[in-house]
Amino acid sequence: MSQTSYALLTEQEETTSTMKALVFYGPGQIGLETVPIPRPRAGEAVIRVTLTTICGTDLHILRGEYPVKPGLIIGHEPVGIIHELGEGITGYEVGDRVLVGAITPCGQCNSCLGGNWSQCGGPLGGWKFGNTINGAQAEYLLVPHAQANLAKIPDELADEQVVLLGDIASTGISAAESADLEIGDTVAVFAQGPIGLCATAGAKLKGASLIIAVESDPVRTEMSKRMGADVVLDFTKEDVVESIKHLTRGRGVDVAIEALGTQATFENALSVLRPGGTLSSLGVYSGKLSVPVEPFAAGLGDHKIVTTLCPGGKERMRRLMELVRHGRLDLTPLLTHSFALDRINEAYQVFAERSNGVIKVAIRP
Amino acid sequence: MSQTSYALLTEQEETTSTMKALVFYGPGQIGLETVPIPRPRAGEAVIRVTLTTICGTDLHILRGEYPVKPGLIIGHEPVGIIHELGEGITGYEVGDRVLVGAITPCGQCNSCLGGNWSQCGGPLGGWKFGNTINGAQAEYLLVPHAQANLAKIPDELADEQVVLLGDIASTGISAAESADLEIGDTVAVFAQGPIGLCATAGAKLKGASLIIAVESDPVRTEMSKRMGADVVLDFTKEDVVESIKHLTRGRGVDVAIEALGTQATFENALSVLRPGGTLSSLGVYSGKLSVPVEPFAAGLGDHKIVTTLCPGGKERMRRLMELVRHGRLDLTPLLTHSFALDRINEAYQVFAERSNGVIKVAIRP
Amino acid sequence: MSQTSYALLTEQEETTSTMKALVFYGPGQIGLETVPIPRPRAGEAVIRVTLTTICGTDLHILRGEYPVKPGLIIGHEPVGIIHELGEGITGYEVGDRVLVGAITPCGQCNSCLGGNWSQCGGPLGGWKFGNTINGAQAEYLLVPHAQANLAKIPDELADEQVVLLGDIASTGISAAESADLEIGDTVAVFAQGPIGLCATAGAKLKGASLIIAVESDPVRTEMSKRMGADVVLDFTKEDVVESIKHLTRGRGVDVAIEALGTQATFENALSVLRPGGTLSSLGVYSGKLSVPVEPFAAGLGDHKIVTTLCPGGKERMRRLMELVRHGRLDLTPLLTHSFALDRINEAYQVFAERSNGVIKVAIRP
Amino acid sequence: MSQTSYALLTEQEETTSTMKALVFYGPGQIGLETVPIPRPRAGEAVIRVTLTTICGTDLHILRGEYPVKPGLIIGHEPVGIIHELGEGITGYEVGDRVLVGAITPCGQCNSCLGGNWSQCGGPLGGWKFGNTINGAQAEYLLVPHAQANLAKIPDELADEQVVLLGDIASTGISAAESADLEIGDTVAVFAQGPIGLCATAGAKLKGASLIIAVESDPVRTEMSKRMGADVVLDFTKEDVVESIKHLTRGRGVDVAIEALGTQATFENALSVLRPGGTLSSLGVYSGKLSVPVEPFAAGLGDHKIVTTLCPGGKERMRRLMELVRHGRLDLTPLLTHSFALDRINEAYQVFAERSNGVIKVAIRP
Repeated sequence: MSQTSYALLTEQEETTSTMKALVFYGPGQIGLETVPIPRPRAGEAVIRVTLTTICGTDLHILRGEYPVKPGLIIGHEPVGIIHELGEGITGYEVGDRVLVGAITPCGQCNSCLGGNWSQCGGPLGGWKFGNTINGAQAEYLLVPHAQANLAKIPDELADEQVVLLGDIASTGISAAESADLEIGDTVAVFAQGPIGLCATAGAKLKGASLIIAVESDPVRTEMSKRMGADVVLDFTKEDVVESIKHLTRGRGVDVAIEALGTQATFENALSVLRPGGTLSSLGVYSGKLSVPVEPFAAGLGDHKIVTTLCPGGKERMRRLMELVRHGRLDLTPLLTHSFALDRINEAYQVFAERSNGVIKVAIRP
Repeated sequence: MSQTSYALLTEQEETTSTMKALVFYGPGQIGLETVPIPRPRAGEAVIRVTLTTICGTDLHILRGEYPVKPGLIIGHEPVGIIHELGEGITGYEVGDRVLVGAITPCGQCNSCLGGNWSQCGGPLGGWKFGNTINGAQAEYLLVPHAQANLAKIPDELADEQVVLLGDIASTGISAAESADLEIGDTVAVFAQGPIGLCATAGAKLKGASLIIAVESDPVRTEMSKRMGADVVLDFTKEDVVESIKHLTRGRGVDVAIEALGTQATFENALSVLRPGGTLSSLGVYSGKLSVPVEPFAAGLGDHKIVTTLCPGGKERMRRLMELVRHGRLDLTPLLTHSFALDRINEAYQVFAERSNGVIKVAIRP
Repeated sequence: MSQTSYALLTEQEETTSTMKALVFYGPGQIGLETVPIPRPRAGEAVIRVTLTTICGTDLHILRGEYPVKPGLIIGHEPVGIIHELGEGITGYEVGDRVLVGAITPCGQCNSCLGGNWSQCGGPLGGWKFGNTINGAQAEYLLVPHAQANLAKIPDELADEQVVLLGDIASTGISAAESADLEIGDTVAVFAQGPIGLCATAGAKLKGASLIIAVESDPVRTEMSKRMGADVVLDFTKEDVVESIKHLTRGRGVDVAIEALGTQATFENALSVLRPGGTLSSLGVYSGKLSVPVEPFAAGLGDHKIVTTLCPGGKERMRRLMELVRHGRLDLTPLLTHSFALDRINEAYQVFAERSNGVIKVAIRP
Repeated sequence: MSQTSYALLTEQEETTSTMKALVFYGPGQIGLETVPIPRPRAGEAVIRVTLTTICGTDLHILRGEYPVKPGLIIGHEPVGIIHELGEGITGYEVGDRVLVGAITPCGQCNSCLGGNWSQCGGPLGGWKFGNTINGAQAEYLLVPHAQANLAKIPDELADEQVVLLGDIASTGISAAESADLEIGDTVAVFAQGPIGLCATAGAKLKGASLIIAVESDPVRTEMSKRMGADVVLDFTKEDVVESIKHLTRGRGVDVAIEALGTQATFENALSVLRPGGTLSSLGVYSGKLSVPVEPFAAGLGDHKIVTTLCPGGKERMRRLMELVRHGRLDLTPLLTHSFALDRINEAYQVFAERSNGVIKVAIRP
């Protein structure tokens, strides 16, 4: 269906078949456009987005640090209402309110059937929204493999309570999960951005005894304590490796979580790890990453380094929503700002500059 | 050894070399005796007990349901101060305040070196105190394999904060651990006695979303909520299997914890389990135990049934104390009553009859 | 549906649109019928079956011990060639030779996305062929969720090399997998029918040191050694529990595999287990199953009991075929007999009576 | 300690109280000396060494690449006969033939009781022989924590069949174990020195389907096939990363094992890994180690990197010996050369120069 096919539509009809969406034109260039509302094929669905947000990854895209195709609608954290269902989708109705994860596995390829849902179809293949297909910063969103990815939202939960589950909570919490964090473990979490804050919440959820966060920003430091950190160390004011060793009585931590993606945080995470401990890495690294040999015990320390790409799929979303529903997790304090979709450019600016104590911004189409 | 055998000791000698201890004579018969203070051989230590408690297992022993040798001092939950150290123990000093687990693995047999510490040396072999060697309901206690079992208590923790860690907390929390409970799992805990209450706390600690406890006693029901239960079902007033299915929207629970040791609770635990779920059993069963074939899906339900004997050893104790130290676990509300060792008979009576809302009793030598 | 209902079709039409299939009419009654070749809807495929077999479960169905709907085509172990592809299936072409597992998960429901593929959509829901939908003892077979279940067969492998992977190998091998069998473990496998023989092969594959099988039939005893058993004990001639304890020097086995589904084998499996060991159960139980309390150490033995329903899906099939391709697994000796589909009644008789040393029968449509 | 210090001993005394041992004087300097036979304290044992070998690590020590204290007797792979038992050791008798692992955990410290036996007491603390205490290239050897480390050798096994289990087999096999290699996984093993060859054997033992080894030495290439490799790639003749991708049909391997400790092999191992795969590292690295960001998928590939120091303790040794006893593992082909202790200098030279197709050398005191 071409864009010209709507030329003869009346204004009324146009209202119902086009939508506003944030389009990436190239590094540094994004803009709201009016584009056709997508139509679902077999196995797909289209949702009307009611709430979404901006991710650090979107900033990377905007800055040209992560390449996506010009013309793409970006964003990957949707909450919405089912607008249209493609053939073969069962158990859903138009009008159902749903959460869709940032990662949308097909469930049917060899990777998925081997339990590697995030790597659906190949490296990073589970991440489709705003990466390889149009994304969520729009009024409507086509959801691929909808049967596997539409998670109904329990009535008692508001959009704001679940919108952060699709990416940052699923990613952040996975740090403790991938590390097989055990009850009573001590944990250090390096960086308390949105994902690091969720990693802190995840370490608390999974039974850590002492949680040490590392952060210098005062707003995030405060939020870190709210999410479960017992101590927050300011790396601009102290040698955090020394401080963590002191706090753990020389033992080192059982689990170190890297939530930034820099050489310094990776190196510090490794340096505070006890023999046999696990470095759980969530950061996105660029350039060369060095493993310092001494903290790595030259490869003889029985260390593990695990990386995790955000787990997705509707079952993951269901489980995360259950945590919210039963009061185990409340991420609404992280939604510090709210913008209408029309003002998304402003939202990007605030988010990028970290002005006004922003952590996450709500975007309302 | 009779109570009169020390009659000829001078008062001075008695003060320094004898102690009071609760001795099991045979089913239904226990009594405080004055016996020699034990002396440590190489690898052993003797502690002066400052706080201990009575366990449900002690009642089983008293009732003749679990056989131990007449003449044995019973009890297996000691907190104390190091009184004397045998040869070869390093890193400890007389006067150190320590917690010793109910299970005291040697650390050096094939079972221990294979990670089966509770089955040290053979079936149930880790459980020595008040079972195969003299126990903790006494003024002094000989600790075998002391290097592996003396856990120093951090200064900031009172005896009362740690005494329940040695058995009921270690056992109760292990239910969620052995089940590999994952963040977001729903859990049902059958029976809220001391161990069931700790199992509830453990499920909360490990990240359960919805925790459903089953109990009829009002004191324990109240305590269950305090330990983390979202809902407590009274099996005398409702069909708990139906209620749990309803609460989980027909799904069944991911993990069912059996904390009593009866056919009925085992069967209910299996009946509320989702396909692929895990029944984590802590109860001590007597007689025949039946697996109802339908809830067991005739063996095709991908179910797991796991049993756990209380994990012990000083590292386990250290980790549990860290949970208390960082405010993750507070079991002091369970210590509802306190008795001097001289009044331990009365304590047994109160504990056995569950009178006055008793949950656990503190015994102070 | 009667055999005469297609009498009026012209010969031409019959050639192209009907097929022969084994239909279950009721307990004790099966018969070959001419029925329409199925047509795939979106997401489905139809394969022309080139090789299939009869499973012990089919005998249960025939005997009325496992209820299925009269009129159903039974059988669940197909190898075939893609005949027709429904809409939305990608990466396959008509003519591709494929193996389809006995269990055909959708990959997109909450169970599947939680990793419980065999329990797709609900208890036992992954098992569809010859259970809830028409099965494989026919000339053509409709494959549901085809994208997730069509596993292409490498050119170098013959149908006979892979036909047993779909059910008995996947099930049998899963015993060691579900038990987390470790390199060096000792294993006892109770019963050496087709699944038990594959369990023996699986224990060998996963690194067991000593494998003790239990079987009395001489043909199966011989085959057991070929599949990897070091010792085969005849339960009609010796006390196998005693013998296994002797062979393990009193230690008991690390893993006991139950591959029959009777009280006696379950009980023996539990009785030979070391403390901390795992009973991996593959059998289908009927009636009440008792857990003998003494070998179960009254619930204090740190035992695990795990059950597994045959793992399915195309990735599982791919992995199993890789084992065959690289010479790690050869199950062709188990295919002792071969029959044309026309003679399937005879095949059922031979298989049911275990005559002529039959283990598995090849059925060729 | 000089060689002359015992000059005044009578011949009788010398026979009974002194021994020959290989002493490290400093980089490049080792020599056989006559020194006192050690005497065991409580918890220790002394064995008369009947067979030992030289490890690559000993070469690192000799070259000054791994620092140990001058005056130390080196070597850490002993087989011997119990000569004297210290107080408190039970279940052993003088004259028992035993294998002792290279790593000798105490079993009683927090690390050991947490399951980190190799890191006993602190980083690398399990490795004592020829590192922090006198080692095995001597006529007699003091074994610390003897209760945990003396593994009786079954009568049917010769010294030559077990001597390589203590270090290279335990280390090599651990690669597949630490990677949680699953039945059907494809594996690449980088370098086929003694440890790499054992890693190949371990991958086979644990059920790998396709095993690709990388090696250029023709003797080791041949041995690699004998140990289980399906294909051996010569990195001097082809681009092994490309070849491995081709052999796995573009998929990459499930598990890549690094068995050398260089940047190139580490990088190649990461480069051939599928998304979600595990790099199991055995090598000892020096200097900086870089993680190439592209194969690492910038940290988003769900990769794991696990390192393992040789597992020790008598239970590990028992299990490895069971593998040999039941014909699952035969490392005797790796013992290519044999020298009397008197000729150990020559043995070092042959081993260091890899002359005459040497893989491992037997040293007989």
